[in-house]
This record gives sequence, C-alpha cells and structure tokens, in this order.
Amino acid sequence: MILVMKDVATAQKTLASATAVGLEHVFLNENRVGFATVKTLAEVPFVDETAVVETITKHPAALKSSRLFHPADTIITTAHSQIGGDNFVFMAGPDSIESAEHIQRMGEAVKAAGATLLRGGSYKPRTSPYSFQGLGEAGLRMHRAAADALGMDMITEIMDTRDVEIVGQYTDIFQVGTRNMQNFSLLKALGAQNKPVALKRGMSATIDELLSAAEYIAAGGNDQIILIERGIRTFDNKYTRNTMDVSAIPVLQELTHYPVVADPSHAAGVAQHVAAVGLAAVAAGAQGLMVEIHDNPAAAFVDGAQALTPTQFAELAKKAVAIREVVKFG
Amino acid sequence: MILVMKDVATAQKTLASATAVGLEHVFLNENRVGFATVKTLAEVPFVDETAVVETITKHPAALKSSRLFHPADTIITTAHSQIGGDNFVFMAGPDSIESAEHIQRMGEAVKAAGATLLRGGSYKPRTSPYSFQGLGEAGLRMHRAAADALGMDMITEIMDTRDVEIVGQYTDIFQVGTRNMQNFSLLKALGAQNKPVALKRGMSATIDELLSAAEYIAAGGNDQIILIERGIRTFDNKYTRNTMDVSAIPVLQELTHYPVVADPSHAAGVAQHVAAVGLAAVAAGAQGLMVEIHDNPAAAFVDGAQALTPTQFAELAKKAVAIREVVKFG
Amino acid sequence: MILVMKDVATAQKTLASATAVGLEHVFLNENRVGFATVKTLAEVPFVDETAVVETITKHPAALKSSRLFHPADTIITTAHSQIGGDNFVFMAGPDSIESAEHIQRMGEAVKAAGATLLRGGSYKPRTSPYSFQGLGEAGLRMHRAAADALGMDMITEIMDTRDVEIVGQYTDIFQVGTRNMQNFSLLKALGAQNKPVALKRGMSATIDELLSAAEYIAAGGNDQIILIERGIRTFDNKYTRNTMDVSAIPVLQELTHYPVVADPSHAAGVAQHVAAVGLAAVAAGAQGLMVEIHDNPAAAFVDGAQALTPTQFAELAKKAVAIREVVKFG
Amino acid sequence: MILVMKDVATAQKTLASATAVGLEHVFLNENRVGFATVKTLAEVPFVDETAVVETITKHPAALKSSRLFHPADTIITTAHSQIGGDNFVFMAGPDSIESAEHIQRMGEAVKAAGATLLRGGSYKPRTSPYSFQGLGEAGLRMHRAAADALGMDMITEIMDTRDVEIVGQYTDIFQVGTRNMQNFSLLKALGAQNKPVALKRGMSATIDELLSAAEYIAAGGNDQIILIERGIRTFDNKYTRNTMDVSAIPVLQELTHYPVVADPSHAAGVAQHVAAVGLAAVAAGAQGLMVEIHDNPAAAFVDGAQALTPTQFAELAKKAVAIREVVKFG
Repeated sequence: MILVMKDVATAQKTLASATAVGLEHVFLNENRVGFATVKTLAEVPFVDETAVVETITKHPAALKSSRLFHPADTIITTAHSQIGGDNFVFMAGPDSIESAEHIQRMGEAVKAAGATLLRGGSYKPRTSPYSFQGLGEAGLRMHRAAADALGMDMITEIMDTRDVEIVGQYTDIFQVGTRNMQNFSLLKALGAQNKPVALKRGMSATIDELLSAAEYIAAGGNDQIILIERGIRTFDNKYTRNTMDVSAIPVLQELTHYPVVADPSHAAGVAQHVAAVGLAAVAAGAQGLMVEIHDNPAAAFVDGAQALTPTQFAELAKKAVAIREVVKFG
Repeated sequence: MILVMKDVATAQKTLASATAVGLEHVFLNENRVGFATVKTLAEVPFVDETAVVETITKHPAALKSSRLFHPADTIITTAHSQIGGDNFVFMAGPDSIESAEHIQRMGEAVKAAGATLLRGGSYKPRTSPYSFQGLGEAGLRMHRAAADALGMDMITEIMDTRDVEIVGQYTDIFQVGTRNMQNFSLLKALGAQNKPVALKRGMSATIDELLSAAEYIAAGGNDQIILIERGIRTFDNKYTRNTMDVSAIPVLQELTHYPVVADPSHAAGVAQHVAAVGLAAVAAGAQGLMVEIHDNPAAAFVDGAQALTPTQFAELAKKAVAIREVVKFG
Repeated sequence: MILVMKDVATAQKTLASATAVGLEHVFLNENRVGFATVKTLAEVPFVDETAVVETITKHPAALKSSRLFHPADTIITTAHSQIGGDNFVFMAGPDSIESAEHIQRMGEAVKAAGATLLRGGSYKPRTSPYSFQGLGEAGLRMHRAAADALGMDMITEIMDTRDVEIVGQYTDIFQVGTRNMQNFSLLKALGAQNKPVALKRGMSATIDELLSAAEYIAAGGNDQIILIERGIRTFDNKYTRNTMDVSAIPVLQELTHYPVVADPSHAAGVAQHVAAVGLAAVAAGAQGLMVEIHDNPAAAFVDGAQALTPTQFAELAKKAVAIREVVKFG
Repeated sequence: MILVMKDVATAQKTLASATAVGLEHVFLNENRVGFATVKTLAEVPFVDETAVVETITKHPAALKSSRLFHPADTIITTAHSQIGGDNFVFMAGPDSIESAEHIQRMGEAVKAAGATLLRGGSYKPRTSPYSFQGLGEAGLRMHRAAADALGMDMITEIMDTRDVEIVGQYTDIFQVGTRNMQNFSLLKALGAQNKPVALKRGMSATIDELLSAAEYIAAGGNDQIILIERGIRTFDNKYTRNTMDVSAIPVLQELTHYPVVADPSHAAGVAQHVAAVGLAAVAAGAQGLMVEIHDNPAAAFVDGAQALTPTQFAELAKKAVAIREVVKFG
C-alpha cells in the first residue's frame, strides 16, 4: 500500500512511526510512504488519517519500482552518461572482451558514433559448458583500461554472487543477463551495491516478473536500475532469434520510473535485422540502445552473427537519433 | 524449383514445353520459370540446360510469393492509392460500419489526416456468437457510398466463400482476418478474383505459414496481395493484447515482394499504446499502417478500447510520415 | 445469465415470457433458463423472482456449452458409438482417403483393435497449395462404403460452408480442423445441421476461445459437439510438432458437458511418441482417442511421419483401455 | 564427437593420448570416448582409426548427458531410493519447511503413501522480495531431522553458489529450481559436488537447453543428475499455471540416460488438476513424481493452492503405481 501524505513532514513522521513499531519493508519517497506488506489502513493504526491525501493499493509486482510511489522519471548519472528521462544513450561494444587492443579499437569506433557506454562481457553465460566462458578478471582489466582511455562508462555482466566484489572493482554498471533475471540471490547482492544495475528481461518473463525482479534490487536499497527489453521467446524463431516486445517499452514507462533501454542485437540474432528492430524500439520510446558490434563478425569469439560492423552501427545511431527527435518533439 | 533462364524468350519456351507435357503449377515471371512440384532438373528433361543461368531450390513456403521468383517489389494500384515499394499508405476507419452518417464522418477525419483507404467491417468475426456480427450488405452499401463520396478506396473483411460475390460487388480490397488466414477454401476463392487481397497474419502463424497462405491466393492467379502484420500471441497479455512482431516486417520484405502493412490497433489492444506500436512498425520498415479510429470510443459497436480518436490518429500519422522519411532517406 | 428456477414448469413459463417480449438468444435446459445477452435480473422484469433458486452470471465464453447451464455430461449416440460420459471411444484411420481398397483395409485393422469410428480426410487443409488436397467427393464415397461394410461410424473433415451439404450426405460426424476453429461462418452452418460436430482446438486457441467456438455451433441449435484437444503450439517444436495440453482435458470437463477426445497424432507429429502422448491424455481423463494409422507410413499421401502401423495402434489401444480402467475405477 | 572404440582397452588408450596432448573436455564411458570440442577425426591424429567402430557427431546440446555416449539408463542410488531405469519414486512433502513438527508430520503422511524422498524448501525463490523467503539453515535442520527419523531421503532447493556448502551438509539431493536452470555458476558449483542434483526444466527452456544445463553439471564430473519436467509457459494460463509437456518425457528418455521425474504441482498450479496432470506424466513414462502436499493448504506458507492433502496424495500415488504397471508391462 502507498500513502500519499499531505506533505513531506507528515510522511517522514509516518515513516518514523512505522519504523518505531518494527514494521518491515517501509519506504519513503518525498510525501509518499510505501508499506510492502500492508494492505489496509487498519493495519497501520499509527497513521494520521486526516493527513492522508490518497491511498493506493494498486501496485502489483512493484512498490519502490512503481511510478505510483515515485512519479518522476529516475535519471541515472554516471561519469559520462545521463540515463533516463528525455536523455538517449548508446551502450555499444563487442559481445565479449577479446583483447586489450580489440576493446580499445571497438570503443573508439562506438564512441565516434555517439556511444558513451562501452559494453563487453568477461563472464559469459554460454548455453554449452564447452564454449568460451570469457576472459574473467583479465577481461575486466582490459575493459576498464579502454573505458578510461576513451572517457566512457564501463558496463559488463555479472553472473555469480561470489563475483560481485571483483566485478564491482572495475565496472561502472552491473549488467544482469536474461538467464539470471530471477536469480534472486544475485539481485539481492546487487541491491546492496552502490552502483547502477542494468537488468535484462528474462526471455520469457512477463512485465510483472521483470518489475518484481527490479524490486528485489530496489528493496535492498539500490534504486539505480535500468531495465533492458531484449526480445522475448515466441513460437517462431526461424528467421530471427527472439521477438523484440516493442509494446513492453511504453507499458514499462507507464508502470515504472526506471529508464528502459532496448537490446536489438539479441532480439534479432542476425545482423541484417538489428537496425530495423533497434529503430522500432526507439520509435516505441526506448531511452537507449544496447548494441553489439565487431570489426570482423565472422571471427568474433561469441555471437558474431548478430554483430554490426562499426559502419553499420554508425548508420543505425544516426537514424536512431533522428527518430528519437520525431518521437519526442515531432 | 525456380529456373532463371538467360532471357525472356527461352523462359517462355520453357513454360510452353512444360504446359505441353501437362506439368501442373508452372509459372512465369520474366525470365524466371517456377515449377511448384519439381525438385530437380532431371524431372524436366525438356528444359534446355545450356540456357539456364541459375537453379534455385530454396523457396520454402512460397514460390510465386518468393522474391527469388519475383525480385522487384509488387506495387498495387487502386483508384486512390499506391501500395508497396517506397510508397506509404494509411488504411483507417472504424472497426465496424455503424451507420451511413458515421462512416462518412470517420472517413472525412482520416482522409484529412492522410488516409487514402477507408476501412470498416460489415461482416465481423466475433469471439462470441451473441456479440454484434456486423450490418452485412447494408453496411457494405454505406461503406461504398462514403468511400465514393470522399474519393477513397474501400477495404473490408470477407469471412465466407459464399460472400465473395456480394462483397466483391462493393469493395476495392478484400481483407482476410487473422482467424481465417488458413481458411484455404476462402483463399482459393479469392485467388480467382481480380481484386487486391489484404491478408492478415494469423495471431500464431509463423512467417512460413503466412507466405504459404499468400501462395494459395497467388497460385490461383491473383498476385495483388498485401500482407498485414497485426501482432502475435505470446505468453504475456496483461497490458497489451498481442505483441507486434516488428522483425517480421524486414524478414517478410526480404522473402517476398508483396507490400507489408502493420495493424497496431489489434496488436496493442488498448488505445494508449497504439501510437508507440504503430511508429515502431514504421521504423521497422512497414509500407503502411492500418488503424482503427472512433469519435466516441466508449460507444463503439466493437473494440472501442483500441480505437484512436481522429485527433490521436492525425498526430500518429504525422509522426509516422516523419519516421518513414528517416527510415527511407535519413 | 443463467437462472435456476424452482421447477421445469416455471422455467418453461419464463422462456415463453422471454420469447414473447422478443428477447434474443434465450435457451432452456430443464429448470435452467439461459439468457445470452442479459446481465442482471433488472433486465428481465417478467421473471418471477420468487421462483428463482439461483442466479449464475459466471459463464465466460460459454452459455449453452457451460456445465452451469447443462450439469450432466452430454452423451452422443451414433449408430455404432456412444461418445461422452464414462464411455471411451477410438476414432482411427488414415490421414487421407487414398483408395477404396485402402480405407477398407485400414478400417478392418482399427476395428479389430477396438475402434468404432473410422476417420479419414477427403478435403485436406494443406499448408501448401501445391500439396495433395484430398480426393473430394470420390473419397467421401469410398469412406462411406468402408464404414458401412464394417459397421463403423464415419468421421471426416469439412472446410467450406459450400461443402456442408455434400459432406453431410455421406458422413456421420463432421470434423472441424484446427485451422478452422474460428471459421465462424462454418461453425454457424454446422450449428444448423442435425449431426454431431467434432471441433478441434485451434493450435493456439485458449480454452475460452474453444468454448466460444463450440457455442457458435450450440447457439445454432446443434448440441451434439465433441471437443478435440490436439496439442498446442509452444516455443519448442524441435522433437515434437506440438504439445498435448493434458491439463486442458480436466479443465474442459469441469467447464463444459461435452465429451473431450484427444488426438495424439498431430500433437506428437512423429510416430515414436504418439503412444506416450495418447496414453497421457487418457490418464488425464480423455473420453476417447483419435489416431492416425497407415500400413505403410512412408508411402502415406499425407503426414506419414505421425502414422502408427495397425500393430502399433492395437498395442496403444490395449494400454489405453487399461489406463482408462485405472483412472475411472482404480 | 563420440568415438565408439572396438574395446575398453583402446578407448582408455585413446583417452590417455588425448590427455597427454592437452586436449580439453575429453571423457570416457566404457569403450566410448567423447571429445567436447572436436568435430572431425582429422583433429585427433593420435587416434588409431582402425580401432574406431563408429564415429558419432550428432549430439547437439549434450555429450556426457547423451545416450549416444552413455547408452544405459543412469540409476541413482541414495540411502532409501533407486531413481531411474524401471524404478518409480515419489518425492513428496510441503512446498516449504514450516516447523519441525510439521515436516515430521507431512513426512509420515507421504511415507505411508509410498514416498521415499521428502521434499521441502528452506531457501525459497519467491517472485516478490517481500514474500516469505524460507527458514534458511533452521529449516534445513528440521528437514534433515524428519528425514532421518522416518528413514527417507532429503531433497531441497539450492539458489546461491555461496550456499552449496551449508545445504550440502544437510541434504541428500540438491534441487535446482526452474528460475535457476541457466544459472551456470550454480550448475558448475554443483558439478563439483558428490551428491545427486535434481534439475528442473526452465519454464520456457527448450529440450536442448535443458540438456545443455545438465551437461554443465556433468562436465564438472557429477553424473548423478535427475531431470524434472515441471510444465512450460504457454499462451494460456487462465485455468492452470503452466502446461505439463508430456511429450518431453519420452523425448528426453530417448536423448539422455538420466532419470526423468515430473512435477505436476507447479505445472497445474491448482490442486484439483494435479492428479490428472501427474497421472498423465506417468502414462507418458515419467520415472517418478514430485508432489507438494499440505495438511491445511489454505494455511500453507507458500503455494497452498496447488498442495494436495495427504489423502489426495495417497489416492494419486495408488493410481500412479497402477498406471506405471500398465505402461511398463501392460
């Protein structure tokens, strides 16, 4: 339940009373107090009902993540990027860190096309145990060095609660992959961190499940969350790997205040359709694109089939910016 | 199998030979000869192999519908519209014909916003037998009158082989709905007509099944086909009815030469997300939008929840045109 | 809305009053009166409220098809079969009628294994227009002759409203295929017939949509309906074509009074898994199995990959009967 | 690639040579040698080709898990159970450990009905962070005590790599839940354990993905794996939560040698359909059932709606055994 109090002072007083009586999962956002486990006013007799402007019980799946609790857009500020609100960002780079030289070169290319965040995986969630599993800490080091050299933010995937400390020593943003969206132990561990978390939607997760997963991070105290729509699994995967759920973008923006970024690379799964899918997501309102690139896709360590060349990415980025302009001010 | 012959003359000769020996399902498109039931050159000993430039056996699901048989975009010309190629069209109007006055008024509104095709149903495929089933021929008459008065093309749904004649007396374009995409008797009947057919993708049809359905029409001799992506059924329908499969648009355009139009109204299912979904489809390359409107959605006979008001449609149309510009020439 | 009246007499009186005032879609089943378009008692002021035992408004998707309106199991009686209730039937035969001799031989085989209904298609809904489309009326004739010779019931597919008369001259039971489940014109036409209709669930139809489709037939006055669960489309079709939705069987039996039969041949799509899928359906409560057989699957005109040999079918039938025994009386 | 060598001695020699040259991911099973990263004989010049009986390259998704590498059924032996082969087991108990007294009482009930494995969760993967998350180690202790007192095996869920040691101190079998099927870090950690792992299929995982996940455990050296089919996510969840994929059972048994157990409780999601779904799985060939029970479902800490009462479970168990009898020897 969310209570909208008449002012910030009464809200703070309400929070203090709730804490004093030992009520768990109580949150404050300006003049709004959220009680995670309370369903009626009768359960919180210490509340001054005359100071309650509105009582909201409609927050399935989310509380701190809900726009009802936090009406304004969350804008996440990193050293080189503003993510959320009317801002638009590109997170780009290779699927995997391959070498210090390669990530540096890829970083230069995507920065030239407008990217401020450099992506790349050092811990890779591969379907087969016999596939390349990433360079580990060595990769993190190369990634960090390239990001620093180029004045970009680093974003990389974390797969294991035991790696939170080591990955956190290098990255600016933690990325949680589609297969770990409901790895609740990992989400809790990241909820205790003081760095943004980019949470990819599970490939068969409902909107409500995505919001609940975000709530695990938020409940832990970390409200720097970026949601990534990366395509869902459907009945037809002959020509593309997954289906970008474009309507999830405005739906999420209605339900939550967190930024919503789209990953057309994994949705399409094949390079020739990445641009169309990415532009579609921008037209639907995405606040950023996460794109995989490679200068020699055929030789990429992982997922070369879906990588754009730097030139293709630059072309996509230009059109994305123009479409964003139409959507916002057209 | 498709044979690319060295010139049109040898192609024509090959077709004549095939026909002479009684080979069924043989088609000609310029210097390309398609044999629907032939898999190897050995089956067609009358072919002059020295005149064969290329042998193409890769055409699952489609033959006449395949771009391999017909490389150039099909452009369909009606009295007031050019559909396909670089053209962009709006097909708009109410879900159902409600009255002569109403369809006239709705037609005026959508024409003012740029639509050249006036949609509206007189035979309605309703989930429940007790729901309004459409005005029937009376509706067709009102629809035709409005289209004529406004100088627009009429497009309306056909559900029954027995109605082909009556509907054909009124409409400019036959529309086949998502539930009848594999009503093969109906498709065959429309294959024998000399009017364009707008074929909606079944809500759980694969790309290949859609192309095979189109092939039923084409095989009958009617190659004026428009494919409509209208959203697919997935595991989550809490916030939108279906999921617009944006990647289907470029995939179809790669595989077939027919125009691809998108219907965001049925995909979204709720008016507040129709614009985002529609713009996404345009960004993905759709060659037109089919949109439901109503001046008083709450009072619409059918599907009011997804109807845009004329003002909302005009706003969507303006942005759609701007995005189309970016996609084509940006 | 369904009204349960205190006795049959008041129910009949209520129906007569409803008809007298011109209320549409009003049905009677013993002491229950169903109003398709009425939601509250206020809309039917002629009803004697003191004689109303219960008011039921919970009948999404179905009214005449609902168990709330018709609590007892519907049992369909044909010349050689009892379908529904505690009865168990086998509908078996080849996918397609291939010749008079072949259907006769296949009929003998399945009859020996316990089948009382002889299936076989003469009008085939093929994905490709270039595939064999069935023998048409010639096939119907062969099918009828074999059924008569063997003392079995004939069941065959109908695809087109224009064929209702001709097919009806031969068959005992009309079958509507998965692709035509929402061909509402066809359902209406069959609602006016006086023969049982076996309605296959659309491969992506919800339970509610299946019930609504059945309601189209029932609303027309034909309440001899058999529902066939034949597997649904999901995200994985690498090893089997579709997924038999076993839980749909008890769910349907809870919601409706019509018999529920399962078709494991189309669900599995490959012969080696048909038996497991079929037995699963029986264990889940199916009141019959529809199975495709062929004495030489590799040479079958259609869908040979999923056909059981007569021996395999006999083995399946034996186990099915034993499992049915366990389920009903175990 | 799998090589079938003429005898065990040459197979051992081949393995030794492969290890000597530093080839990674090489496994031996009797006279079969599997090379995870090798595709042709040319890559392994040290192999004596004259001793190769067969070369198998068809093992998508699995190698050690493949029946091609390990033809015989794997049978897992715990203190009180034999799992796999022709054996049939019941794993039953409450969703969550609630108290020492409760798990003891539930254990008595399921043991009386034939269960040899006592299930119950102490670490719960809840969709919402505000829901009950399990009793943790205190729960493990109660669970262990009840299993010991009753002479049953303990099976419980593990969610976090950091908990492997503590859970391993108590449980007989680790269970990996549907949301963690592709938590590869966890799978790797369990691959290094010397205890059986029951791996639940992800609710939208393909058969191949499930086998690849199992391969992560096997590749680490742990080949005591039980696969659990627990229902998949489809387009319709109005009446049941998920759809038991019955055909996955024979398909898995064809592809892999590991036992396949079914969980009808999570598939059905509502108690009244658990029995039908469970019996269907047995009829399809499942080698065991995992079932949730509760003596007072309405008061269960978690998922009470799907819990059977002890009496209902006993009834299901009796029929399951009878159907297993028909399937195996009927």
